[in-house]
Amino acid sequence: MPVPDEQIFPHATGNAISTVEAHKEPQELIFYAGWFCPFVQRSWIVLEEKGIPYQYKEVNPYKKEKHFLDINPKGLVPAVEYHGKALYESLVLCEFFEDAYPGHKPAILPGDAYTKAYARLWVDFVSKAFVPVFFRLIMSQEPEKQESARTELYDALRKFAAQVKGPYFLGDEFSLVDVAIVPFITRDYILADHRNYSREGISAEWKQYADHVEQRESVLKTKSDKYAEVYGRYLRDEAQSDAAKAIRAGRVIP
Amino acid sequence: MPVPDEQIFPHATGNAISTVEAHKEPQELIFYAGWFCPFVQRSWIVLEEKGIPYQYKEVNPYKKEKHFLDINPKGLVPAVEYHGKALYESLVLCEFFEDAYPGHKPAILPGDAYTKAYARLWVDFVSKAFVPVFFRLIMSQEPEKQESARTELYDALRKFAAQVKGPYFLGDEFSLVDVAIVPFITRDYILADHRNYSREGISAEWKQYADHVEQRESVLKTKSDKYAEVYGRYLRDEAQSDAAKAIRAGRVIP
Repeated sequence: MPVPDEQIFPHATGNAISTVEAHKEPQELIFYAGWFCPFVQRSWIVLEEKGIPYQYKEVNPYKKEKHFLDINPKGLVPAVEYHGKALYESLVLCEFFEDAYPGHKPAILPGDAYTKAYARLWVDFVSKAFVPVFFRLIMSQEPEKQESARTELYDALRKFAAQVKGPYFLGDEFSLVDVAIVPFITRDYILADHRNYSREGISAEWKQYADHVEQRESVLKTKSDKYAEVYGRYLRDEAQSDAAKAIRAGRVIP
Repeated sequence: MPVPDEQIFPHATGNAISTVEAHKEPQELIFYAGWFCPFVQRSWIVLEEKGIPYQYKEVNPYKKEKHFLDINPKGLVPAVEYHGKALYESLVLCEFFEDAYPGHKPAILPGDAYTKAYARLWVDFVSKAFVPVFFRLIMSQEPEKQESARTELYDALRKFAAQVKGPYFLGDEFSLVDVAIVPFITRDYILADHRNYSREGISAEWKQYADHVEQRESVLKTKSDKYAEVYGRYLRDEAQSDAAKAIRAGRVIP
């Protein structure tokens, strides 16, 4: 019997369809993606922000094809193929796009060394203090575990929101900090529908930030409308993704 | 009763004493450190590599002083104070030193965008696939848990070693990948003494790499000789550091 995640809906929907359609032609940069994956959306947003030419290729990460595994043995998406060589890890890819395409604006990291490091600190906060508990809250079954995860998630998002200069995290400029967190904002209706989450319940600052950042053009262009279908497996704690297995085992998401 | 970790040996020993002595004078960059901490050693190595002027301040992270908490509410070391503002997180600091002191060589990241991203991938591998299991192996008490952690650690280090171009990870140039892992190499005698670890047991490539990289001057200059005293608490699973608590709870090391 195939693992449940193999039966995933096979392609992007909603706004993201036309973005996929516009990137079917071969390019020197191939972007291996899963339409539903928040980590993929991070890298995809940066490609769209910068107008970098890329070819979009949909990969079902639970049915990996040979060429994809040949260039990317870890097998995770997002990944890129660039002059025949592979790179992966969403945040590494975002920084790679910044470094490899310096003529493509906007920059997603500030030029000033201190502010750049400050941005990296908050990206690190998103990775360590927010993303794992986002998955833990979705996957928790018992009410007391849900409550404890929700408390932890609210605490992390309140800390984050308190640092938002507005309208974006660093102020007027959209940056890697926004990129790191916004795919989870576009999916937070799943928490609202099933885990007693609300933006205003966190803080007025969080609601204002989340409501604004999710309307960024690059976010809308990479957004699908069937996330809930995929996350049903997480909500029932049936997901077989590497992220789901790691959360279940108390391990770092690979 | 104070928590056991408060009674930590109060200052650097071995080679690191003279490095600390040489950095007592006030500087625009203040480096808040714990002599025993592998994350501190990462940032310290980069300061020494680049010859950046800094003032070393020893902090017992279990007895945090007011000024330190004022500038750095998270309270973790390593941290820096730079023009009155704080930064922390070992890898963020390493990249900050690279960005803020461009005239100070050597660079710790390659100039080529692909190779830079490739280096970041392997830094990420060290953070996710190696560091947590390093702590898990030290802290495991039951033989079967030790065996399972050792297997996982060996697997990670074999993968890493297979990518080493030699003598350093990327070839002739010492880089952030080496910086990220070498503090754990300087402490691996604790695993050898107590957890049935051996460099040659992993692979000939690993032994050759580890034997070489630990002799780098910046590594020797930041190395103390009393690590075993601190790690006794970890070996008995009594440590109360944030890292130890996170490992115990199956959470990300903050």
